Amino acid sequence: MADPCIIAVAITGSVPRKKDNPALPVTVAEQVESTHAACEAGASLVHVHVRNADETPSSDSDKFAAFLDGIRRHCPGIIVQFSTGGRGRALEQRGAMLHLRPDMASLATGSVNFPTTVYENPPDFVRSLAGSMRDLGIKPEIEIFDLAMLTNTRILVEEGLILPPPHVQFVFGVKHALPSREDILDFELKLMREILPGATWTAAGIGRDQFSVARAALARGGHVRT
Amino acid sequence: MADPCIIAVAITGSVPRKKDNPALPVTVAEQVESTHAACEAGASLVHVHVRNADETPSSDSDKFAAFLDGIRRHCPGIIVQFSTGGRGRALEQRGAMLHLRPDMASLATGSVNFPTTVYENPPDFVRSLAGSMRDLGIKPEIEIFDLAMLTNTRILVEEGLILPPPHVQFVFGVKHALPSREDILDFELKLMREILPGATWTAAGIGRDQFSVARAALARGGHVRT
Ligand SMILES: [Zn+2]
Ligand SMILES: [Zn+2]
Ligand SMILES: [Zn+2]
Ligand SMILES: [Zn+2]
Repeated sequence: MADPCIIAVAITGSVPRKKDNPALPVTVAEQVESTHAACEAGASLVHVHVRNADETPSSDSDKFAAFLDGIRRHCPGIIVQFSTGGRGRALEQRGAMLHLRPDMASLATGSVNFPTTVYENPPDFVRSLAGSMRDLGIKPEIEIFDLAMLTNTRILVEEGLILPPPHVQFVFGVKHALPSREDILDFELKLMREILPGATWTAAGIGRDQFSVARAALARGGHVRT
Repeated sequence: MADPCIIAVAITGSVPRKKDNPALPVTVAEQVESTHAACEAGASLVHVHVRNADETPSSDSDKFAAFLDGIRRHCPGIIVQFSTGGRGRALEQRGAMLHLRPDMASLATGSVNFPTTVYENPPDFVRSLAGSMRDLGIKPEIEIFDLAMLTNTRILVEEGLILPPPHVQFVFGVKHALPSREDILDFELKLMREILPGATWTAAGIGRDQFSVARAALARGGHVRT
């Protein structure tokens, strides 16, 4: 493969806690060091959810700012992507840290069920986040948990809210969203190439699907997230 | 085609109002007569949303009961399907009329964006509706607005909440849910045949997509909704 592969590292996600894995980086200092180590191991993009003192996903701009500041000193070359998702965060807070101008931010372009809840991204909320990212020069990573999120991305490009070509991440293995199946990835890629010409892409599998999805993405010339 | 095709009639949907089309049946008496006419024209299934006095979708059990009673007298052979969807209806009211034991009821097995809102069907709500239908002997029509609703149906069958083989309806053309594309229908059918063996199916297009989707369904041996 001539094009280099971007390895993205999601150092924490939004669900795991220290009781699940004591190595989970939860404080900003731990997250900066974890990213630093991943960076030295070859990661070139970090996807981050900062956490509250009780380990739940946080919308605190000060924590995002401290993370960004730490990263710029410890591993200046890495691409920083803030999560605008994360379970339990209030809708109106999920984009509150975009003014810090990370390189990228995640953007789910529709709603879907998660294991026990609805992952809510109402149309006007999606438009508002996309417009803020465009205006602030932040590259969105479009999170595709279900097929209509891909077709909605085309609508947002047509509306001028997402600048082409988009960068898309296909997510697999969250219960009640799309399961990990290669035929679904292949169909998504075919549709993406038609409706989002020039798009770049990553695939990410959750939990036990992580390695099989990474293998499937690499085999198809995609980037990967670990 | 050896198997007969079921033509379902959705006499009102949930969105149109009399100002959009004066012929829209809104009162129970109008809905019974509209169904009677469709029945004589060849429809063998009616999908109904009863309406409030202001024409918004209603959850009033008395209206559903009056509709069922009228239908049984005017066109006793037709299959009656109550909608458990409909925009603006409270979640806890959407299954309140199932005790009337219609032949069928609609069941969306996930959440998705609609033009301006989130069509919310949280996992436990879906399980509760599916379990009520199973216990009352009501056949669900599984409404597939996005791909994960199809894979979720498999989970509900495995959980014993939907009795196999299910009856599935693929819906196209609602903005922010799946657009009307034959390649999407073909992929859904391929997946359905694998994960829901023996399933029967219909496809429905909304508004301007109604006839093209009906044609695509008929060409593939499916049932249709008008
Ligand atoms: Zn994340
Ligand atoms: Zn360091
Ligand atoms: Zn309906
Ligand atoms: Zn009559």
